[in-house]
Amino acid sequence: MSVLTVGTVAFDDIETPFGRAEKVIGGACTYISWAASYFVNDIRLTSVIGNDFPNEEIKELESRGVNMQGLKLIENGKTFFWAGRYHSNMNQRDTLVTDLNVLDDFDPELPESYKDSKYVMLGNLTPDIQARVLEQLSAPKLVVLDTMNFWMDVAMDKLKEVISKIDVLTINDEEARQLSGEYSLVRAAEKIFEMGPKFLVVKKGEHGALLLAPNEIFYVPALPLAEVKDPTGAGDTFAGGFIGYLAKTDDISFENMKRAVVYGSAMASFCVEEFSLGKLKALDQEMISERIGKFVEITSFSL
Amino acid sequence: MSVLTVGTVAFDDIETPFGRAEKVIGGACTYISWAASYFVNDIRLTSVIGNDFPNEEIKELESRGVNMQGLKLIENGKTFFWAGRYHSNMNQRDTLVTDLNVLDDFDPELPESYKDSKYVMLGNLTPDIQARVLEQLSAPKLVVLDTMNFWMDVAMDKLKEVISKIDVLTINDEEARQLSGEYSLVRAAEKIFEMGPKFLVVKKGEHGALLLAPNEIFYVPALPLAEVKDPTGAGDTFAGGFIGYLAKTDDISFENMKRAVVYGSAMASFCVEEFSLGKLKALDQEMISERIGKFVEITSFSL
Repeated sequence: MSVLTVGTVAFDDIETPFGRAEKVIGGACTYISWAASYFVNDIRLTSVIGNDFPNEEIKELESRGVNMQGLKLIENGKTFFWAGRYHSNMNQRDTLVTDLNVLDDFDPELPESYKDSKYVMLGNLTPDIQARVLEQLSAPKLVVLDTMNFWMDVAMDKLKEVISKIDVLTINDEEARQLSGEYSLVRAAEKIFEMGPKFLVVKKGEHGALLLAPNEIFYVPALPLAEVKDPTGAGDTFAGGFIGYLAKTDDISFENMKRAVVYGSAMASFCVEEFSLGKLKALDQEMISERIGKFVEITSFSL
Repeated sequence: MSVLTVGTVAFDDIETPFGRAEKVIGGACTYISWAASYFVNDIRLTSVIGNDFPNEEIKELESRGVNMQGLKLIENGKTFFWAGRYHSNMNQRDTLVTDLNVLDDFDPELPESYKDSKYVMLGNLTPDIQARVLEQLSAPKLVVLDTMNFWMDVAMDKLKEVISKIDVLTINDEEARQLSGEYSLVRAAEKIFEMGPKFLVVKKGEHGALLLAPNEIFYVPALPLAEVKDPTGAGDTFAGGFIGYLAKTDDISFENMKRAVVYGSAMASFCVEEFSLGKLKALDQEMISERIGKFVEITSFSL
């Protein structure tokens, strides 16, 4: 099954209590596509870069089955740049720099070959761009949207408009509370289902992830790790593993979404072990199976 | 099997975003004993009160199989009083008042009939008092100690001395980091095992609880609830359910501790649904079984 991915392709400067990395490859669409590439080989990337972006990164993604027709190259443009610093608890961060650059007037026009995409992952971007992509698709089977508090602060109306047209919303717990006005995540989910989505994934970082549907709850903890170097991209990697697994299995039942949440969590647990795409590029199916086994191990109990 | 419980018996003033309660019954030992009473009927309470403490509360605990010989009554004394206010996120709180009162010079002397206790729950109190109780026991099978950052700040040496003599330590994630100097909870646990305990329970509030032993990890999420009124006593209630289940089954293997963590979490999930002991006093075995079923439901997935 085909997966359409939309989001930033970026350079990141990252500072964590455990080190720093300068001008490394980042961006939601990059993480999503890399993670999904371990599940499917028909991925259609939609983003924009400047001519400062290294060609070998593009070639590497292409070799993983990622279609780059939808990657717009702006000559004399500079790639989106983000710099951030993580607090000692790693669950919070400060944004130091956001240079939109080529993203500033990005208006995604999908290649014809993308328009029949079945599984769609709208990575965190302006709701306008997410909407523009959505309206060009002929008959998506499942649309997942990731967003953040920033868009709730500056573009809530537009965001709610897009949210009304999607199937799965992925946000963190504070964002679920902000969007719904409800403290309880159970109540927050009820309100969010009224807005349109049929499923809500609440990403809780080191505390795991919740999957909710009307009258259904599933909660997978995060894997406690000996070493966490850099949480950047963990949410996007989760999303990539989640949609990749769903597309591979082509089954959008709640039972299968539970498995997709576990696979997404497993991919995210690799992501944070190295800066940038360091670990994510070095995986194989055996490592992923073994990691999934650890999730089974830490969550299993018999009465 | 016998369970010895130690800790405060208190009056609480509580303010949460969802309401307030004045001069309600609280205290670690109270919550622990109530929770444990759903599992065993040989509970030996050790604490101190003033003559302002209502007699019917004592009678109620006695009727649940709680031995009150170790409850010291100070004539003309006032019962320990705590007042706190929870932040909007409910995972943080400010202490507004702490009146030690009769607790100020509490030196627990165990009744003879307590000294052979097998399962021991040292609730959050000064490490001195916890040590004093421990040294009077003849041959405990399992000693669990709960503590908090306050004792790490003001009495770390004494705390470490007691910790060296116990089997299971229950603390929250920030406290595990403070005690060990390690950010990763996996690494923190390794350091803590070097201090003496064979098991570590990391209480994460609305994010669940981790059970760690050397080379073993189990993570049970908290049950997402539609309504959380008051988190006070949730950790103590967890501890009471945990030790109660272990004493009832008399099995301290890691596999059984996993079940005990689930039972502890289930009891805590009831605790937070009402102020004070409101919900905890109104339970029965069927409600507990049903709640355990919900934990199975939200954590189960098949590959």
